[in-house]
Amino acid sequence: MIANELRKDYLLDRWVVIATERKRRPTDFIQKTLAEAKPENCPFCPGNEHMTPPATLVYLMENGKIVKERDTDGYRHENWIVRCFPNLYPAFTPPKNGEKFEIKEQRFAEAFGHHEVIVESPIHDEHPGKARISQLLHVVNAILDRLEFFQKKSYVKYVSIFRNHRREAGASLSHAHSQIIATPIIPKIIELELKASKKAWENNSECAFCEIIQKERESPRFIWENAHFIAFAPWASINPFEFWIFPKRHEPSPLNSNEKERRNFAEILRFCLGGLDKLLNDPPYNLGFHVAPVGDYEFYHWHVEVYPRLAIWAGFEKSTGMYINVIPPEDAARSLRERIGLK
Amino acid sequence: MIANELRKDYLLDRWVVIATERKRRPTDFIQKTLAEAKPENCPFCPGNEHMTPPATLVYLMENGKIVKERDTDGYRHENWIVRCFPNLYPAFTPPKNGEKFEIKEQRFAEAFGHHEVIVESPIHDEHPGKARISQLLHVVNAILDRLEFFQKKSYVKYVSIFRNHRREAGASLSHAHSQIIATPIIPKIIELELKASKKAWENNSECAFCEIIQKERESPRFIWENAHFIAFAPWASINPFEFWIFPKRHEPSPLNSNEKERRNFAEILRFCLGGLDKLLNDPPYNLGFHVAPVGDYEFYHWHVEVYPRLAIWAGFEKSTGMYINVIPPEDAARSLRERIGLK
Repeated sequence: MIANELRKDYLLDRWVVIATERKRRPTDFIQKTLAEAKPENCPFCPGNEHMTPPATLVYLMENGKIVKERDTDGYRHENWIVRCFPNLYPAFTPPKNGEKFEIKEQRFAEAFGHHEVIVESPIHDEHPGKARISQLLHVVNAILDRLEFFQKKSYVKYVSIFRNHRREAGASLSHAHSQIIATPIIPKIIELELKASKKAWENNSECAFCEIIQKERESPRFIWENAHFIAFAPWASINPFEFWIFPKRHEPSPLNSNEKERRNFAEILRFCLGGLDKLLNDPPYNLGFHVAPVGDYEFYHWHVEVYPRLAIWAGFEKSTGMYINVIPPEDAARSLRERIGLK
Repeated sequence: MIANELRKDYLLDRWVVIATERKRRPTDFIQKTLAEAKPENCPFCPGNEHMTPPATLVYLMENGKIVKERDTDGYRHENWIVRCFPNLYPAFTPPKNGEKFEIKEQRFAEAFGHHEVIVESPIHDEHPGKARISQLLHVVNAILDRLEFFQKKSYVKYVSIFRNHRREAGASLSHAHSQIIATPIIPKIIELELKASKKAWENNSECAFCEIIQKERESPRFIWENAHFIAFAPWASINPFEFWIFPKRHEPSPLNSNEKERRNFAEILRFCLGGLDKLLNDPPYNLGFHVAPVGDYEFYHWHVEVYPRLAIWAGFEKSTGMYINVIPPEDAARSLRERIGLK
């Protein structure tokens, strides 16, 4: 019996036990529950636009070209390709009267910001693991439109883009959608990544994330790549089958990406999430973008992290901030690589 | 419409949105699922001792007094009051040949340590929310016996004691039990608490935690107290109905507690977890001890944190380290206070 391995994240002071002692096979994680059936009256489906707030952005197709509109005067656009609107129960809301954001006594503040939903397709279950790449490209473009829009607000310091897949991962509605939350402070995890990557940039004149890409491209944790993006299982994965997607070109924010890169990003999302879907029968997951905050962060490198929800973080994880992962990332990468290879 | 409130934890740089916009009533969180039935062949029930590893500690009652024993030579003690044994799938294991713990290249190490289960009662479902206080006192004593034992190991830096209640909170078996994990490094959350409390100790010659007790005792977040312990909902609760239990006497570790204090601790656990149980129909929760690591940490103040699992931390929480909590701690405390008051 060899002891399990403790591993530390590339940049964060975050430790995980890769618990080979209780090593499990990928097949142990195959989901037995079916995806939820399409509900009778889905508020995100076409025809039910009145059940949600007016759209802040819709993509419409006119003469083969995307036209961008928003709902005004009680009118709801129909026949949309992608639709964005405020969350009915927003965690963050814009200031009503131009108030400035202010932290009082270092311990509380008003939660100024935005909280929107991005419906990814008029087709109820066209989620990124099975979407047409052309559709996914519209989703990426719409997300970036909203990112750009929110970053201009004076009270916004960071914009978090994420998607929760299936109810077990926190999705209260099953229609394919992402969410976007603009916050008035830089969140902790991003702050820690900024701190570590700034240090590497200043000490070694190099990007800490570019270095990770170089290393993982040749490692047994490599999963898939195309011209502009690479996917791998991180060295200190805190979730079974976790994977990260990085742009190969150093860029703090996805806003500067060109059409070719966006299409490549849609493609790698489609292939990797599709592989996960097929390997484990559509498991629940959380997906989060990590992007540079508003401002000058040339040393940062945007990316996406995908956290399948196949294990429960319980008392140990919650009271220590240490993690236990029963699938070594090398095994996760091999399974995903093989599955994606089958197409 | 007023914006939600952003709140920061007492000591950690951890922010939560108290989302009054989507404010929910306690009744919204009442569990509908019944507790799991007692399985036919529970490995933790009396008579099935051979299904688990030999006990490292059992409490036996002889002539009205507790006698401490351990299983040896294939013999399994029966008629135990409390029973401790190694986890069948340990996350951490002791070094086999006296190897020293060593972190290699700042990023990996062997996971030396211990991982044990503490069966809290011969009665399948005698969990702390409904246990006899006399039984709970035995559990507390056994936990502290193991804590003391593990802290003497050269490769142990910290001992984490926790309990996962119900399958949804990560308990793979329904028989009442806690777990104890001894780790070779100081976990992140404890390290951050140590750092912040050391600073307060050195700057103001006072305990940061004693100050919290003083403040919360008079606040609307107060829940319950007895002679030696106090329970309250923390200012920046990251979970609905979260509560913390603190000893009133400043003490880095529970090991120095006397019999009276231990009985008071068993009592406050029983009343608060019992209140939670009755208020929300036995919800899943994680409970974690926060104790001083091995060494001299006079500025630390041990305590217990209870995290009911009534909401899902999803893409936003996982990619930012910020939280959204839909029950203000003031409301949680009032409901728990009222429920405990009914006895």
